[in-house]
Amino acid sequence: MAKVAIVMGSQSDWPTMKNAADVLGELGVETDVRIVSAHRTPDRMADFAKGAADEGIAVIVAGAGGAAHLPGMIAAMTHLPVLGVPVQSKALSGLDSLLSIVQMPAGVPTGTLAIGEAGATNAGLLAASILAGSDADLTGRLKAWRAARSDAVAERPVD
Amino acid sequence: MAKVAIVMGSQSDWPTMKNAADVLGELGVETDVRIVSAHRTPDRMADFAKGAADEGIAVIVAGAGGAAHLPGMIAAMTHLPVLGVPVQSKALSGLDSLLSIVQMPAGVPTGTLAIGEAGATNAGLLAASILAGSDADLTGRLKAWRAARSDAVAERPVD
Amino acid sequence: MAKVAIVMGSQSDWPTMKNAADVLGELGVETDVRIVSAHRTPDRMADFAKGAADEGIAVIVAGAGGAAHLPGMIAAMTHLPVLGVPVQSKALSGLDSLLSIVQMPAGVPTGTLAIGEAGATNAGLLAASILAGSDADLTGRLKAWRAARSDAVAERPVD
Amino acid sequence: MAKVAIVMGSQSDWPTMKNAADVLGELGVETDVRIVSAHRTPDRMADFAKGAADEGIAVIVAGAGGAAHLPGMIAAMTHLPVLGVPVQSKALSGLDSLLSIVQMPAGVPTGTLAIGEAGATNAGLLAASILAGSDADLTGRLKAWRAARSDAVAERPVD
Amino acid sequence: MAKVAIVMGSQSDWPTMKNAADVLGELGVETDVRIVSAHRTPDRMADFAKGAADEGIAVIVAGAGGAAHLPGMIAAMTHLPVLGVPVQSKALSGLDSLLSIVQMPAGVPTGTLAIGEAGATNAGLLAASILAGSDADLTGRLKAWRAARSDAVAERPVD
Amino acid sequence: MAKVAIVMGSQSDWPTMKNAADVLGELGVETDVRIVSAHRTPDRMADFAKGAADEGIAVIVAGAGGAAHLPGMIAAMTHLPVLGVPVQSKALSGLDSLLSIVQMPAGVPTGTLAIGEAGATNAGLLAASILAGSDADLTGRLKAWRAARSDAVAERPVD
Amino acid sequence: MAKVAIVMGSQSDWPTMKNAADVLGELGVETDVRIVSAHRTPDRMADFAKGAADEGIAVIVAGAGGAAHLPGMIAAMTHLPVLGVPVQSKALSGLDSLLSIVQMPAGVPTGTLAIGEAGATNAGLLAASILAGSDADLTGRLKAWRAARSDAVAERPVD
Amino acid sequence: MAKVAIVMGSQSDWPTMKNAADVLGELGVETDVRIVSAHRTPDRMADFAKGAADEGIAVIVAGAGGAAHLPGMIAAMTHLPVLGVPVQSKALSGLDSLLSIVQMPAGVPTGTLAIGEAGATNAGLLAASILAGSDADLTGRLKAWRAARSDAVAERPVD
Repeated sequence: MAKVAIVMGSQSDWPTMKNAADVLGELGVETDVRIVSAHRTPDRMADFAKGAADEGIAVIVAGAGGAAHLPGMIAAMTHLPVLGVPVQSKALSGLDSLLSIVQMPAGVPTGTLAIGEAGATNAGLLAASILAGSDADLTGRLKAWRAARSDAVAERPVD
Repeated sequence: MAKVAIVMGSQSDWPTMKNAADVLGELGVETDVRIVSAHRTPDRMADFAKGAADEGIAVIVAGAGGAAHLPGMIAAMTHLPVLGVPVQSKALSGLDSLLSIVQMPAGVPTGTLAIGEAGATNAGLLAASILAGSDADLTGRLKAWRAARSDAVAERPVD
Repeated sequence: MAKVAIVMGSQSDWPTMKNAADVLGELGVETDVRIVSAHRTPDRMADFAKGAADEGIAVIVAGAGGAAHLPGMIAAMTHLPVLGVPVQSKALSGLDSLLSIVQMPAGVPTGTLAIGEAGATNAGLLAASILAGSDADLTGRLKAWRAARSDAVAERPVD
Repeated sequence: MAKVAIVMGSQSDWPTMKNAADVLGELGVETDVRIVSAHRTPDRMADFAKGAADEGIAVIVAGAGGAAHLPGMIAAMTHLPVLGVPVQSKALSGLDSLLSIVQMPAGVPTGTLAIGEAGATNAGLLAASILAGSDADLTGRLKAWRAARSDAVAERPVD
Repeated sequence: MAKVAIVMGSQSDWPTMKNAADVLGELGVETDVRIVSAHRTPDRMADFAKGAADEGIAVIVAGAGGAAHLPGMIAAMTHLPVLGVPVQSKALSGLDSLLSIVQMPAGVPTGTLAIGEAGATNAGLLAASILAGSDADLTGRLKAWRAARSDAVAERPVD
Repeated sequence: MAKVAIVMGSQSDWPTMKNAADVLGELGVETDVRIVSAHRTPDRMADFAKGAADEGIAVIVAGAGGAAHLPGMIAAMTHLPVLGVPVQSKALSGLDSLLSIVQMPAGVPTGTLAIGEAGATNAGLLAASILAGSDADLTGRLKAWRAARSDAVAERPVD
Repeated sequence: MAKVAIVMGSQSDWPTMKNAADVLGELGVETDVRIVSAHRTPDRMADFAKGAADEGIAVIVAGAGGAAHLPGMIAAMTHLPVLGVPVQSKALSGLDSLLSIVQMPAGVPTGTLAIGEAGATNAGLLAASILAGSDADLTGRLKAWRAARSDAVAERPVD
Repeated sequence: MAKVAIVMGSQSDWPTMKNAADVLGELGVETDVRIVSAHRTPDRMADFAKGAADEGIAVIVAGAGGAAHLPGMIAAMTHLPVLGVPVQSKALSGLDSLLSIVQMPAGVPTGTLAIGEAGATNAGLLAASILAGSDADLTGRLKAWRAARSDAVAERPVD
């Protein structure tokens, strides 16, 4: 079955990126989670990006913070869809992460999600919706997941 | 064959969004281009979003500027992958468009591309890479397109 | 009597939006408070927005954070005055909420207040001043409320 | 009949603010247009703000740029609804105007619209929707104006 | 002797503005500290601003946060030098305060200092340097204060 | 008579800074205009700053753009009042200039005016108001200048 | 002799980066100018970065715009000093370029210069000052270049 | 042996700048650490900057926050390479520090690193790589330091 790779630049990104793994787990999508640093392990990154398709990976979710080069550099070395999660940075609250990921030049796309945990959850969901395009069962699970979320919205706030 | 819908809030977004249509055309992907305004034609938008999957649309590319609600609202009403293009706005140069599209809450993802024309081209490419996951011919055309771009990079700048 | 609807995207917006309800309560204006999510319950939102006038609602106060689409989408589906409250977001402190609400295109206005609790209080006050246009008693109560606030300003700061 | 005052800090704001006058004219709402500078004519501003209600003005639309104090200062001196239009400034493109108008403290609201011409049009529309609350004919004209705008949205972009 | 007025919009600005009073006290400059709100007590503000010169006030230091109109509005109603202190605001950290104070139109200056406590200290110092222009004793005290600050800078950091 | 020095980092700042010289000329205040670069002529800057008081200069107006260090560095080397004008920069429109000038640490104030030409005019006016504190004739001219500006504000905009 | 490599992501960066080549030429420093795209030619970039030291390159100047990954990625693959020039981008004026280059994580430095042409000139100068550390002749030429710049600063502006 | 000077504007910058000293210590590079304030001790700064080369200093690392003038002013008075570290400021999180340091005009470069501790570490590393250009032993230690960092990157995140 098609897998989603979840990669991040450092261990410190895991509390954010775990949200992508969690939602993919809830949806029954297999994930492959790795630490791949654009800056500290560029060769490991290149090996991963170039080999991902052959490893059966169908979508790559990449999270990074600050001068966040990981999603864009992976996108430069694979034709697979790459989704980027801007991890919230200390000084600039993730604005640097966001711009470093989303402002890619024409030719090398990264589908960018929101800064932080919501973005990681959504990267997982978007990866699932991509796989669902050729997996009717997953489509069903995704629709059910979404419906459950909608049903959980109360009518009135509680103090 | 699976189609990519390209939607935008107004005629004035077309010079930007045309770049998505162009690259999808180069890659041999069928597109369905429409004006669907979240604010001026909300019912048309809802009808479109809810019916897109049944119309054979596999990916939706949505562009909007300013308080850009179109990508996120479509994403709220379909399980299909939605890619958002922030159109460059007059006063704030698209920073408003970008934040309005990318900062979606957990549960409703929009894969966001760069502000303006580069973002539209990249939305087309990302849509193609999504479809390519279950279309080996398209994978081949996508790889060729990417290789041609790389080969076209000169070694030295020319005055 | 004319009512003010106070709507918000999620339970987590209530500590902010409660300030609108509180000031309207102090002014003797009836309120109708609901959770209506643009993204998770778009149909409930559409039903609410389209039916609000017939339910006797005269002004709608809508609060949302991040890619805050609720005020603008409601404004797209009613001719009633819509006031937007940007809820302070985690990473970008409500700048995303503010721009997503205020930068509406020509044709669909949302009267936007300050980020956070002050904005919610002010949305309540502005709603009251709108209703006061055809309610002399409310005008009197609003003037008294304002005068009391002014009288409460001390002449000198206290350590 | 209730009137809408449209005030601005200087002649140079008129190309922007004219959009508010225009849409109110289309909707058959009487307007009273004045130059009232918070900084150069503070007494004229105070006289205007304090006397507006007695002059039969029901809503005040105020536009200003840069350190834009006009909407907030008028709101400090009247209980009438005040709508603020951030005029696009030269260096900071209206971001200064926007923050100066929208970030009012609790107690003194200004309903703020988008930066520039779209904001001025929308201030006119919001003012009309406020008056429409006690004017069924105006409600009808406002609905018709909105419907005409929606109907004018084409289905497909034209090159 | 010439006095410096220190005014602020609310009691909550005092912890910031106290720094101006403190440094002026150290320099032996008489101060007159008041709460004067542009938005909640506009008439008190106007009375203060118009009467300040006749009360023997030579420089006005005004602090405010958010849509900070106090310094600019006072400057509109007196020919005395007005110095503005942007109080750090909750959501936008004082960027709104800064722009609301500094971006005054040609004709009505406010000399603006840094956001927060450093700005308040510096407003006191700048007020003192203004008075020192016609007060040789104060010039001496100001020079001594500055020299003491310089002498206190250590050569090496200590862990 | 007391003089105002107007200094700037380069010839290219003169179109902006000329506005300070012009308004001081209108008010009959003597000016001394120089190019003094913090970065290219640091010794000339130090000589100027340290000798200004002895040359009969009473207020220093300093304009600079980008990483604008001139006003703050002069303020570090004189006890005279220093007013800073952020010159509009190319890439960041003067936001860099503004923050580099206004965000001075406690102990070394620069009274900062608006970005660009309005700021230069206002630096001239603020310098005049500082000198007017011990010059009754100048006070009269300053009041007259201000009154003429107020009287020139029309009541109604003209198309 | 030691060489400075000047690399950039695309031909369109050359008008900016030419300023680095020009100043190095004036200082008699040999340069090696190439187009090396992080995104379109990642392998060429890796080959260049890893081989630069062996080719006799002593300092690398890298310019890029938008999600500007080139300087940081080169820095990840060489121990040579890497200087980054943020090229001014269309929508965000180079703020994205700046943050993408400067906000590198601990371990992989890029010495970043100003946005645009001034930054490119300064990258050239900084590279020269680095080489001058072990080249007394170059130190002399650098000092002379700097002195000539200082001497060229006029005392008075000319209309 | 060549030394790296680490200078900062105040004792409060030391927790940040200590990271530069630490990494240089790990690499066996001699450092000279001083407090030199552009604003409070401008003469000490000038003496330091002008004399640094003669003292055997080869690279200067300068940290400062807010209106951070230290790196640029030192660069104005020495031909040595100057690296700037933007210290995180209270209100604006170091954005003011960053722009004040990086946006230097053509002719006077400061190689700028990231805001805060990562930037200080990287300033140390970049200084080392500059010295390594004429010190083969240091090159070896630098390569080993980098390799150890890369080897320490785990393959998988740990909860």
